[in-house]
Amino acid sequence: MKTIGILGGGQLGRMLALAGYPLGLRFIFLEREADCPAGQVAPVVVGDYADPAALARLAERCDLATFEFENVPVEAVQRLRERVPVHPSPFALLSAQDRLHEKTLFTDLGIPTPDFVAVASFIELQSACKRLGFPAVLKTRRLGYDGKGQVVIHSAAEMEPAWRAVNGVPSLVEQFVAFRRECAILGVRAADGREAFYPLTETHHTRGILSTALAPAPHASAALDTLARDYVKRILDRLSYVGVIALELFDCGDGRLIANEIAPRVHNSGHWTQDAGVCSQFENHLRAIAGLPLGDTTPHGYCGMVNLIGDAPALERLVSIPQARVHLYGKEPRPGRKLGHVNFCLPTAADREAAMRATLAILPPR
Amino acid sequence: MKTIGILGGGQLGRMLALAGYPLGLRFIFLEREADCPAGQVAPVVVGDYADPAALARLAERCDLATFEFENVPVEAVQRLRERVPVHPSPFALLSAQDRLHEKTLFTDLGIPTPDFVAVASFIELQSACKRLGFPAVLKTRRLGYDGKGQVVIHSAAEMEPAWRAVNGVPSLVEQFVAFRRECAILGVRAADGREAFYPLTETHHTRGILSTALAPAPHASAALDTLARDYVKRILDRLSYVGVIALELFDCGDGRLIANEIAPRVHNSGHWTQDAGVCSQFENHLRAIAGLPLGDTTPHGYCGMVNLIGDAPALERLVSIPQARVHLYGKEPRPGRKLGHVNFCLPTAADREAAMRATLAILPPR
Repeated sequence: MKTIGILGGGQLGRMLALAGYPLGLRFIFLEREADCPAGQVAPVVVGDYADPAALARLAERCDLATFEFENVPVEAVQRLRERVPVHPSPFALLSAQDRLHEKTLFTDLGIPTPDFVAVASFIELQSACKRLGFPAVLKTRRLGYDGKGQVVIHSAAEMEPAWRAVNGVPSLVEQFVAFRRECAILGVRAADGREAFYPLTETHHTRGILSTALAPAPHASAALDTLARDYVKRILDRLSYVGVIALELFDCGDGRLIANEIAPRVHNSGHWTQDAGVCSQFENHLRAIAGLPLGDTTPHGYCGMVNLIGDAPALERLVSIPQARVHLYGKEPRPGRKLGHVNFCLPTAADREAAMRATLAILPPR
Repeated sequence: MKTIGILGGGQLGRMLALAGYPLGLRFIFLEREADCPAGQVAPVVVGDYADPAALARLAERCDLATFEFENVPVEAVQRLRERVPVHPSPFALLSAQDRLHEKTLFTDLGIPTPDFVAVASFIELQSACKRLGFPAVLKTRRLGYDGKGQVVIHSAAEMEPAWRAVNGVPSLVEQFVAFRRECAILGVRAADGREAFYPLTETHHTRGILSTALAPAPHASAALDTLARDYVKRILDRLSYVGVIALELFDCGDGRLIANEIAPRVHNSGHWTQDAGVCSQFENHLRAIAGLPLGDTTPHGYCGMVNLIGDAPALERLVSIPQARVHLYGKEPRPGRKLGHVNFCLPTAADREAAMRATLAILPPR
């Protein structure tokens, strides 16, 4: 019976444990707070990622390890790796932590991505905007997720406030993409190179935070789905990746998909896989890192997910939504905080739409 | 956020916890061994059901309680009830613990059950067999489950060995029923009287232990399903029951169903509900005892379950079965021990049959 060590004890870690228990796996987390979402369902080594002693305590209690948070320091993963196998690799983690590495990876692999220029000073920002034109998007190279570390610049006058907003840290300027919708695709790769892909998923964001997801993405042609799979497959193969990866894409509406970013972990855009009659992204990530065969990824219906952000209706109301499968993370309400989500898997697209609408109708205003 | 206390830390408790975590519930178990199946996924008060101090420690750490094992002493439930609400009630537990009470309940409610005579001595056993004829079934009044405490008596010569086999404890003699198949139905009742029912399930046993289940039961007419629901509803209502109950039935093949026994808890015949696109028996039990609305019970396909008993194939092989959803309990192999189960929910009955056959083919011989 293997024990999996996980860096990070948030909801992704919690859901990894809940997906792994039925396989007879055990879990141990490293997190600063004992009563974190994962700590409510599994033991926790309380400590900091940067503390070698805490990492050693984790390593002693597990057979292999992974992470649930892409901003875990690469050094922590490298240190842990001296004691137990860790997947995905530090190289994969590094590629996702720095937008310049990430963009370079896309470009190298022939995956379309918005034109970009790396900037390290205000002068460079000015020259980048001149080259790329307005609107442009200024993004910090590191520590970006849920829309953090991003500013849209519409005119020359907005350059200075934008530069101040990112505290003048090393950044990228990207050309703004006029996309029709945002999508994401999840791929999973085992150590032996076998791969599986979930269908292209349509995602919607509210103030930078994922709010809803629909899978398969409505009206996505087979060609579009194949294109997305091809892109994520290139990344999996180049990184010799082991585990689940998410690729966020802009769908231009004309058959083109433009890569936005990757997340080297299970991802909010794949939470619908928990209730789709398939092997969930959480279980497939565990299978990949534990050397088990991958599971099926073709959903048994029209799937949808609604995030519960900031505040959530009473549990009584949530479980009263017909056909809803409720997932709460054991967190206290706080503005902008992901507290849980609701999944649907229904026989028609119309059923799904009605269920999502009914759910959104009872959410507190954001 | 409520914490549920559970008497008993076996696989049923483990699966209750895994079903309750996504609702934000927390769990605490009372069990003699810390490393029991539930203890791998939740905290445990290590102690005996009969120890008032252990019960007090459990009560201090939970808001309400239930049990996962019908042979927990009624006194323990009564003692716990002085401190926290406990569902189902001691009365329901008592009715299920003693076959004489159980049979009397069926008879009172007009639910057909095999003719029976209570016996407390060998003389009474002889007279009972004379009255009921052979074959007859001798069953101890208490502590029977998984075929334990049962002997079939085919002739007068078998009476004495049978009586010795049950150690001469208070028992029942039942007329042997020539049934076509065995079935079970699960009902759930909330404190406010609302009820839900899963479809009639066909069950197969190997040496008294459930080996496979099919739901909905193949070729069961709507009338048969309605009859089963009516019977379990009578029991739920009479006992003012709160939680999930299982009613095991003999299907005579001529439209009649004959009640065999009840289990006042989640039940192995309902494990398929975990992967049927419905609210599982585990979640519905928790919803009922926590005062939440009940969830949907209509499966999204042809469901099947195969128990892993005594020894199980390697995890690699289990997860390689296409469409299989694997559930392991974290137990070491031992003859006759339930180690896990595999669920299917497939679009046709033929798909289900093929999947079940493929699974049975890789099981070690029993």
